[in-house]
Amino acid sequence: MMNTTKIFASMRLLHRISKLSERKIHEIPLTKDHYGIKRGPYASVTDQDINQFERILSTNNQILLRPEDTAEYNRDYFRYVRGLGTVVLKPRSTEEVSAILRYCNIRRLAVSIFGGNTGVCGGSVPVFDEIILSMELMNRIVSIDEYSGLLVCEAGCVLAKLEDELSKKGMIMPLDLGSKQSCQIGGNLATNAGGIRLMRYGNLHGSVLGLETVLANGEVIDLMSNFKKDNTGYHLKHLFIGSEGTLGVITRVAMSCPVAPTTQNVILLGLKTYNAVLQTFLQAKKQLGEILTSCELIDQASLEYTVEHLKTSSPIDAFPFYILLETTGSHKEDDEEKVRQFLEFSLEEGMVTDGIITSEPSKIKKLWQLRERIPAATYSNNFCLTYDLSLPLEQFYSIVPAIRKRVGHLVNIVCGFGHIGDCNLHLNIAGNILSEEIRKLVEPYVYEFTASLKGSVSAEHGIGLLKPGYMKYSKSTAAIALMKQLKSIMDPNGILNPYKVLPYN
Amino acid sequence: MMNTTKIFASMRLLHRISKLSERKIHEIPLTKDHYGIKRGPYASVTDQDINQFERILSTNNQILLRPEDTAEYNRDYFRYVRGLGTVVLKPRSTEEVSAILRYCNIRRLAVSIFGGNTGVCGGSVPVFDEIILSMELMNRIVSIDEYSGLLVCEAGCVLAKLEDELSKKGMIMPLDLGSKQSCQIGGNLATNAGGIRLMRYGNLHGSVLGLETVLANGEVIDLMSNFKKDNTGYHLKHLFIGSEGTLGVITRVAMSCPVAPTTQNVILLGLKTYNAVLQTFLQAKKQLGEILTSCELIDQASLEYTVEHLKTSSPIDAFPFYILLETTGSHKEDDEEKVRQFLEFSLEEGMVTDGIITSEPSKIKKLWQLRERIPAATYSNNFCLTYDLSLPLEQFYSIVPAIRKRVGHLVNIVCGFGHIGDCNLHLNIAGNILSEEIRKLVEPYVYEFTASLKGSVSAEHGIGLLKPGYMKYSKSTAAIALMKQLKSIMDPNGILNPYKVLPYN
Repeated sequence: MMNTTKIFASMRLLHRISKLSERKIHEIPLTKDHYGIKRGPYASVTDQDINQFERILSTNNQILLRPEDTAEYNRDYFRYVRGLGTVVLKPRSTEEVSAILRYCNIRRLAVSIFGGNTGVCGGSVPVFDEIILSMELMNRIVSIDEYSGLLVCEAGCVLAKLEDELSKKGMIMPLDLGSKQSCQIGGNLATNAGGIRLMRYGNLHGSVLGLETVLANGEVIDLMSNFKKDNTGYHLKHLFIGSEGTLGVITRVAMSCPVAPTTQNVILLGLKTYNAVLQTFLQAKKQLGEILTSCELIDQASLEYTVEHLKTSSPIDAFPFYILLETTGSHKEDDEEKVRQFLEFSLEEGMVTDGIITSEPSKIKKLWQLRERIPAATYSNNFCLTYDLSLPLEQFYSIVPAIRKRVGHLVNIVCGFGHIGDCNLHLNIAGNILSEEIRKLVEPYVYEFTASLKGSVSAEHGIGLLKPGYMKYSKSTAAIALMKQLKSIMDPNGILNPYKVLPYN
Repeated sequence: MMNTTKIFASMRLLHRISKLSERKIHEIPLTKDHYGIKRGPYASVTDQDINQFERILSTNNQILLRPEDTAEYNRDYFRYVRGLGTVVLKPRSTEEVSAILRYCNIRRLAVSIFGGNTGVCGGSVPVFDEIILSMELMNRIVSIDEYSGLLVCEAGCVLAKLEDELSKKGMIMPLDLGSKQSCQIGGNLATNAGGIRLMRYGNLHGSVLGLETVLANGEVIDLMSNFKKDNTGYHLKHLFIGSEGTLGVITRVAMSCPVAPTTQNVILLGLKTYNAVLQTFLQAKKQLGEILTSCELIDQASLEYTVEHLKTSSPIDAFPFYILLETTGSHKEDDEEKVRQFLEFSLEEGMVTDGIITSEPSKIKKLWQLRERIPAATYSNNFCLTYDLSLPLEQFYSIVPAIRKRVGHLVNIVCGFGHIGDCNLHLNIAGNILSEEIRKLVEPYVYEFTASLKGSVSAEHGIGLLKPGYMKYSKSTAAIALMKQLKSIMDPNGILNPYKVLPYN
């Protein structure tokens, strides 16, 4: 059903963000043509359907039909996919979502669920003329309880808005993302978003206490527990976390939110070997213990390239590896003493050769830039292949020299960086011309390498439209078959986010 | 199919542990008679089946058939249920589990999965002649990786054994249970066990990274990710966590295990009002932040009764409420300074009136006894009704005076205690004779009260054999229907742990 060669080609396109983002909407190729996707057996929207949607939705401004209004809902943030949806519906309540889906299911109208549209795998916009169900008007905060550390809100709430409201009560969201000004909490759950607080506060399967979801047939499933402990039957909510809108539409969320820390330290360390990286990480976990919040690896190529791109100078001598550590806590002096002891020990033991530490916000920002701007630096090339992998720590970095050996002489840079605290490596390969030779030297090698270590070929980005073909590298045939079985009973007509997540064969 | 009146009666029996545990095995009434359960449409074991099991299992001591050997596998720890299983199988590998289930599924032989047998809801032993699948020989630790904080082991590993092995590398399990000397990690996952570390390290949905499970038809589903981040398709492992063996047999586990803390402080505080309890808990979260590990509530009745039962004296004056706090961390002086500041603040603000603090292991043990021995103290009565509820913190304690008003004059004690840090209240009602009047005044009032606050009627104990009838108080009809649908596709012949978890009507 889908042309594999074209998907591979698109994967490369995906990452030429700097070039792509300059495209005008009409210049983005239609997804269906670009990926050679065949339309599923769905009905097409009629005037009668529009009339029905008008009856369901309480006010007029909840339906968009004019092409100039719907265009933005048909292209993704990175402008590498474009759909043909002609109807945008903006429900204001769970009841409206339910009525829309019940109707669409009977009519066999496919539905694409639209959140903050910040996904990177093309999962958030239609492929053909799916009805676009935008959650943006379901943006009410229901309650914030500082005693139990509980947030209850609707799915369309923007992450940064939630963070703002929580901060008024001395709380924070357990997740933080670069896209927080746009992304919605419902989409965060649907894609099981990771982010830079994951090492400290765990993933969404731990911090989501409850959710409400609407199944394809319009049935509302209320799984809105407000409690960390609730052993009454199967734990259904987890089916919807990470299912990318293909099993149900998340309409409401209850989350456990921690007390906001009041102190922050950032440390940049230079290390001579990968073994020293491992030892230092272990020591940081032991000595910084409960205040350790982030542990990021940056290799020499990444740092040098980024420093050059930012037109700045490196705050530290040249080393094969760098570790960027962040601590957050509640007592300034205690934290500083812990950090001091850790640094003293690491220097004495010879694990670390050089380092910088700061607790000043402006300097913290500058140090974090060295990590956060690596993607932008590599994207400034004509092409940039990027991979989002989970790998065992022992072999965490070995893919980078292996790839460098294969294609280093054909490209401008091969670099590795990422969340070593979460075993999550980003591998970027950037250059002038993406030749067939380079492509063949990199893929499927990267995926096979990852699969051989039982790693994940999509650590935090998800599957969406672009990666169903790669799922097999991280999931067994039996597991994929069970996923398909679940999809078939929960959405027998396949109306929810078609063409996404599940492989076609 | 099941007689509701009898279930209610049994719930009361369940909690007369001190009396029940004195029973000889043959004195325990047969579950099927006591609860009026009708046998499902399963085949009965034949000699031919035994021959087949002998072919599947590699050594002779993996099959028990003599009644004196199988008796212990037919009664639960608390001796309130008894089954009629005649065959105990002890597989040594996933392949053997797979072969057994494949055969049983074809033959329509029902299977009861047996772990450490420490469950409190009768879920761990057969009701009729189900084949008993004991996981005890699958007890190998596959690997412990201190760098990524990862434990990989088989499902039959005993929790305390895992804790011992991890401690050699400076790590701990993210969960701790009173039953740790017997309970198995596979059973912990199957029942989504909670325990006293949950407030600090979160629940198993967060800390289990991967698992391997065998479906009813013998198919092995390998979901053995070793990583915190893996967004490649539906997150299937969570379906098996908390499903109490009714969807698949967990055979292997990968867990994220934290670095072991090296410091410990325990604080007992006396408080005059429930509002002061709430304020103190909030302040503890803010000031003790990342080192706060446990926060337990004890009411006056609980403490006085326990002190009397232990034949000791209270280390603190009489107060309506007590809070027991534990901190664990990595720096003794830092922790003590944090605790000192917190206590100073709480006393100055008038939230706390009196308190004791210790970091001496022997004294820590004594303080914890005041919380841990409350159940034993109340069980020393002729009867003790106990409820394991999740409730919103604002109304957390209100059920206790409400019940006291209803039945206080008819019983010896009504008391409330529990994990306020997790919103988990234990309500115990104990006395001499459990009259029909008392029963009617307590039930269904407790469940209806909990349901009206959207609480959980089984916070950490699960459903098992005894609580399917109560699930409706915490789960909607639509959610229960979806659970049944999942069961029907994953175990169409219903051979896995029949008569348990799912309500019959």
